[in-house]
Amino acid sequence: QSHYSYKKAAMLCGIGSDNLVAVPCDETGAMIPSELEAAVGEALASGALPFFVGATAGTTVTGAFDPFHEIADVCERHGLYMHVDGAWGAAVLLSGRGDRRALMDGAERADSLTWNAHKLMGMPLQCSAFLTATPGALEACNGTRASYLFQPDKLHAEYDLGDKTIQCGRRADAYKLWMTWKALGDAGFAARVDHCCDLAEHFERRVRGSGGAFVMAKPRTFANVCFWYVPPSLRPWDPAAAGEEARRRMASVAPAIKAKMQRRGLAMIGFQPLDGMPNFFRIVFPSCLNTTKADLDRLLDAIEEIGSNQ
Amino acid sequence: QSHYSYKKAAMLCGIGSDNLVAVPCDETGAMIPSELEAAVGEALASGALPFFVGATAGTTVTGAFDPFHEIADVCERHGLYMHVDGAWGAAVLLSGRGDRRALMDGAERADSLTWNAHKLMGMPLQCSAFLTATPGALEACNGTRASYLFQPDKLHAEYDLGDKTIQCGRRADAYKLWMTWKALGDAGFAARVDHCCDLAEHFERRVRGSGGAFVMAKPRTFANVCFWYVPPSLRPWDPAAAGEEARRRMASVAPAIKAKMQRRGLAMIGFQPLDGMPNFFRIVFPSCLNTTKADLDRLLDAIEEIGSNQ
Repeated sequence: QSHYSYKKAAMLCGIGSDNLVAVPCDETGAMIPSELEAAVGEALASGALPFFVGATAGTTVTGAFDPFHEIADVCERHGLYMHVDGAWGAAVLLSGRGDRRALMDGAERADSLTWNAHKLMGMPLQCSAFLTATPGALEACNGTRASYLFQPDKLHAEYDLGDKTIQCGRRADAYKLWMTWKALGDAGFAARVDHCCDLAEHFERRVRGSGGAFVMAKPRTFANVCFWYVPPSLRPWDPAAAGEEARRRMASVAPAIKAKMQRRGLAMIGFQPLDGMPNFFRIVFPSCLNTTKADLDRLLDAIEEIGSNQ
Repeated sequence: QSHYSYKKAAMLCGIGSDNLVAVPCDETGAMIPSELEAAVGEALASGALPFFVGATAGTTVTGAFDPFHEIADVCERHGLYMHVDGAWGAAVLLSGRGDRRALMDGAERADSLTWNAHKLMGMPLQCSAFLTATPGALEACNGTRASYLFQPDKLHAEYDLGDKTIQCGRRADAYKLWMTWKALGDAGFAARVDHCCDLAEHFERRVRGSGGAFVMAKPRTFANVCFWYVPPSLRPWDPAAAGEEARRRMASVAPAIKAKMQRRGLAMIGFQPLDGMPNFFRIVFPSCLNTTKADLDRLLDAIEEIGSNQ
């Protein structure tokens, strides 16, 4: 359930996507540590050299958090580098609620962590952080010491961070994050995070209390809600029991409703198939500062109105 | 004389910087085609498989343009992919002067071209284009078809370009370029390019007419001027004839002047050593819309004033 950027990175780095091993996940979308242990053992037995484990804090589809302590134990046992992709979910560390912050337990044992402040913190696109536990790693990996850019004998050479990055020329996104943090404070960021999570909780409650018009497609962990709208003719909807024809019909429901909502200018919500289940809606709440629970109620009403008239 | 991004790309892609061959350049900084031919022959003889040639339109330091037709001939002879890094210089294609546009002759034979509109066209940082002559190449190289992002059954799926890129989530920089181009027209962009080149020409004239206070360090091709300020005690300055002590003293001149200009808030001009020559100043003119020739005269006067009082 990791982000496809792991696949892209393997392709780009010359490792090759064939050498990327997908570890099975539980129903929420979180990596199963015993499966990781087994995959490492299998790789070693085949003569391969596993060296990197990519864990995820807030998977893209379901918003699941991997069990970081158990993954770190596996990594320590085998001397593997542990990275946590917290692009979407690491922001829970800023939450005011302990149960939300606890989703990140053990992530502090990782060798590196990514965090996209442009997702849950309301920053502009591309404002992202890569944190490494190894001082000097960025310079060692990326530094090429081009003499025409990074003169060691110039004034304030120590503030020139260009050679520590892949791209060199970049926008000063860190400044925007710093300014916003200064302006809002920890409490302001906590309010943003918790507002988004609260919206997801409210949405889930409405789905579960809909009497079968809406059905959860995946358990909810974070600010993602995966759900079906079930047309009256397909109720009660149980994906495990649904036959081929019902599944085929269900697969077309979300695309049709989305297209109609899009044409009416109402909303754009993603949908997708997963784990053999037909297309379901996936709504996420990133930086939804001005979205209210009443907005979500209206959205569910609109989906139901469009869906029941299909 | 290519940009160090070639080195970074070789490191990042798993090719390894050891497998990147630097081809010798002429005095202006342009690749020597016969040396490229020799390097390809040498690689083949050693059992290596050369497949990519990185040419440059506007080198970083001197602003040199490679002889693209002759390089394309070598590439065709050996079946090599030809890329032109026009990040800095491809904008001359928009110039109103034929002799400037001619610097790009033969670049049209390349398999791909990069162009940074944020350099000479006054666009915001990161507004860059990668043009390929092979339809579908970007999708074939970068596409991973993540089902949760790129649903083929969604409305207007054909407008979703995310899977053709390395990064997916990006700013809409192309829109800014398109808007500016609409607003300024070809003539407006030509005026920007030619203003920058004219400034460089004026600067060179002032250096050459300074009676020895300033000396060109490299021939000028484009909007880059590489020059020394020569303190009275080091005149007449001839780098080929200068002894060790004079070279050592000259190496400290540009850093000292730059630091003083920086502290006074006057200007920030890069300096660097190259090809065994001690530190020289390198001034470039990217998007200098409001810079006038009088500004350059004042800058040269300031350098001379600071330098002669060292």
